[in-house]
Amino acid sequence: MPPLPNICPSSIASDQFVTLAHGEGGRAARRLIEERIVPRLKSTVAGELTDAATLPPLAGQPVMTTDSYVVSPIFFPGGDIGKLAVYGTANDLAVSGARPLWASLALILEEGLSMATLEQVLDSIAAAAESTGVQVVTGDTKVVPRGAADGIFVTTTGLGQLLNRAPAGPQSLQSGDRIIASGPIGRHGMAILAAREGLGFDPLPTSDCGSLWPAVKALHDAGCQVRAMRDATRGGAAGVLQEWAAACQRTMAIDEAAIPLAAEVRGACELLGLDPLHLANEGTMLVAASPEEESQVLETLRGAGGCAEATVIGQVVARSSVPVFVRRGRGVEIPLEEPQGMPLPRIC
Amino acid sequence: MPPLPNICPSSIASDQFVTLAHGEGGRAARRLIEERIVPRLKSTVAGELTDAATLPPLAGQPVMTTDSYVVSPIFFPGGDIGKLAVYGTANDLAVSGARPLWASLALILEEGLSMATLEQVLDSIAAAAESTGVQVVTGDTKVVPRGAADGIFVTTTGLGQLLNRAPAGPQSLQSGDRIIASGPIGRHGMAILAAREGLGFDPLPTSDCGSLWPAVKALHDAGCQVRAMRDATRGGAAGVLQEWAAACQRTMAIDEAAIPLAAEVRGACELLGLDPLHLANEGTMLVAASPEEESQVLETLRGAGGCAEATVIGQVVARSSVPVFVRRGRGVEIPLEEPQGMPLPRIC
Repeated sequence: MPPLPNICPSSIASDQFVTLAHGEGGRAARRLIEERIVPRLKSTVAGELTDAATLPPLAGQPVMTTDSYVVSPIFFPGGDIGKLAVYGTANDLAVSGARPLWASLALILEEGLSMATLEQVLDSIAAAAESTGVQVVTGDTKVVPRGAADGIFVTTTGLGQLLNRAPAGPQSLQSGDRIIASGPIGRHGMAILAAREGLGFDPLPTSDCGSLWPAVKALHDAGCQVRAMRDATRGGAAGVLQEWAAACQRTMAIDEAAIPLAAEVRGACELLGLDPLHLANEGTMLVAASPEEESQVLETLRGAGGCAEATVIGQVVARSSVPVFVRRGRGVEIPLEEPQGMPLPRIC
Repeated sequence: MPPLPNICPSSIASDQFVTLAHGEGGRAARRLIEERIVPRLKSTVAGELTDAATLPPLAGQPVMTTDSYVVSPIFFPGGDIGKLAVYGTANDLAVSGARPLWASLALILEEGLSMATLEQVLDSIAAAAESTGVQVVTGDTKVVPRGAADGIFVTTTGLGQLLNRAPAGPQSLQSGDRIIASGPIGRHGMAILAAREGLGFDPLPTSDCGSLWPAVKALHDAGCQVRAMRDATRGGAAGVLQEWAAACQRTMAIDEAAIPLAAEVRGACELLGLDPLHLANEGTMLVAASPEEESQVLETLRGAGGCAEATVIGQVVARSSVPVFVRRGRGVEIPLEEPQGMPLPRIC
């Protein structure tokens, strides 16, 4: 069948760059999948990678979540779009009280993307999946013409199994409950901002991109009864606090001096006039727990990987005129606004 | 928090167009989801649309599949990107022998997309999901700057439950097995080609975009023991035949005169020099069955919705020097080549 003129001028397969031919149903597409994608993900999966994966029966209720990742730049200090996609999806399952088990991987590639970049992202996906116990069981690859996408977009869907003791959720929050940050906040947002804008900070802010599953598992194994957990991604900690305040019809009172911050995030925020509560995180969560559970939750989190700096940053109080306020210097209580849009597109 | 200059010049929310603000974690994003997306999908789902959906326990093995849809144009005769995404994902589950139950929906929107277009796609997603018994249980929305995507990309992941009698698969094909097309082939590929290139055919070719679940369910309920089923999407029927030949190490012998074709697809293929076996389908499958099962499979398919023209188009024979051949006019056997890349990017 002769190619039609003016439809796909660059449908010739290439070994170094992704071409439109790699996205269609022919030999080039099959070779891309069989030779470059499947071997890199094989280590994560017990069976074969197929168009539709038949999985072992689940002992408990399934939990499903999905996210598209369009982060720019693709590679940033502390991570890349592949690592972000796997951990982001695993974290959504974990904070919902589910053990992450399986993931699907859908790639949208721009014609002209270098194979080396694709392979680096795939290796990163495989490493993150393995480290957090997730098998990449099925996938899809599309290629769009130059200019119709920006390099690579990754959509991961996660499937997990509900633990036998999932959090009751933010609607169950009571006055007096402690609000705990699992670690320093704002690192991912600041890392992306600095990388994208070429801000010459020294040291460079590094993303917290990582798995929350070890921390959630530790809380579960220790029998901690937390009321709510939420990874503070887009919208930052502020977004989670607004959501919790709306769900329980109480006010979230945050103590600015208690918020854990990396030195470089603190410095950059002061310089740029940004509030770290508004910056995205990709491996840091907020946890709400009763005063009775506080010490066990903190101790358990600090003993779990990656949460050594877990600390109480505020508490739930009776509903006042504002849903969230921050006690700043000299005890002044300032309402925390929900921004219209964030100043930083494409952070994840 | 004042917006940083030069980072997000158009982060102001708009009611008529998608803006970068709609993709971030603030108020505009929440309003887009709460006011425009959730109400349109609500009819498909029993509970709430959440970041991670906890689902009822599954009685059988879970089956998972994912696809990104980047079709251009977004609307085409017979369907649109939303209908295509839902049916495409449901069909992948169905031909794997699973009942489609749940789907996730991840949207990548280009800044400037009209809200009317977004809403039309969402309505189409809801209608398709309802008609095929799928609940859209979780989702994600990202917005990328103008020029970083093309209008709208949709990624759907489907979760289904394995039927108690799934096909053994193409590796089980035996010489003498019948190869059945569930309906006229090549309709989707030709519809996209005609729409994109403005080819003035009369009547205009219409996509077969539709659900194969009713046909698969009918075969299952009738106790038909088919060996393999496969929706003939990218790569067309030719792609499926190549894959089956490789899996069973036999040859697929197709009879050109037996292939069901819509008159407008036949005419357009002759005019353009295209082979309908290479054109994509989005609601048509190939089924392989033993000679003993042939009549019951045909009768069952023809009685199921949308497969009235199901017919035998060839059979499996002992391995010859070519994996797939087509018996064309005057009995000449022509090898069916696997194309390097297809002449038509972005058909799904």
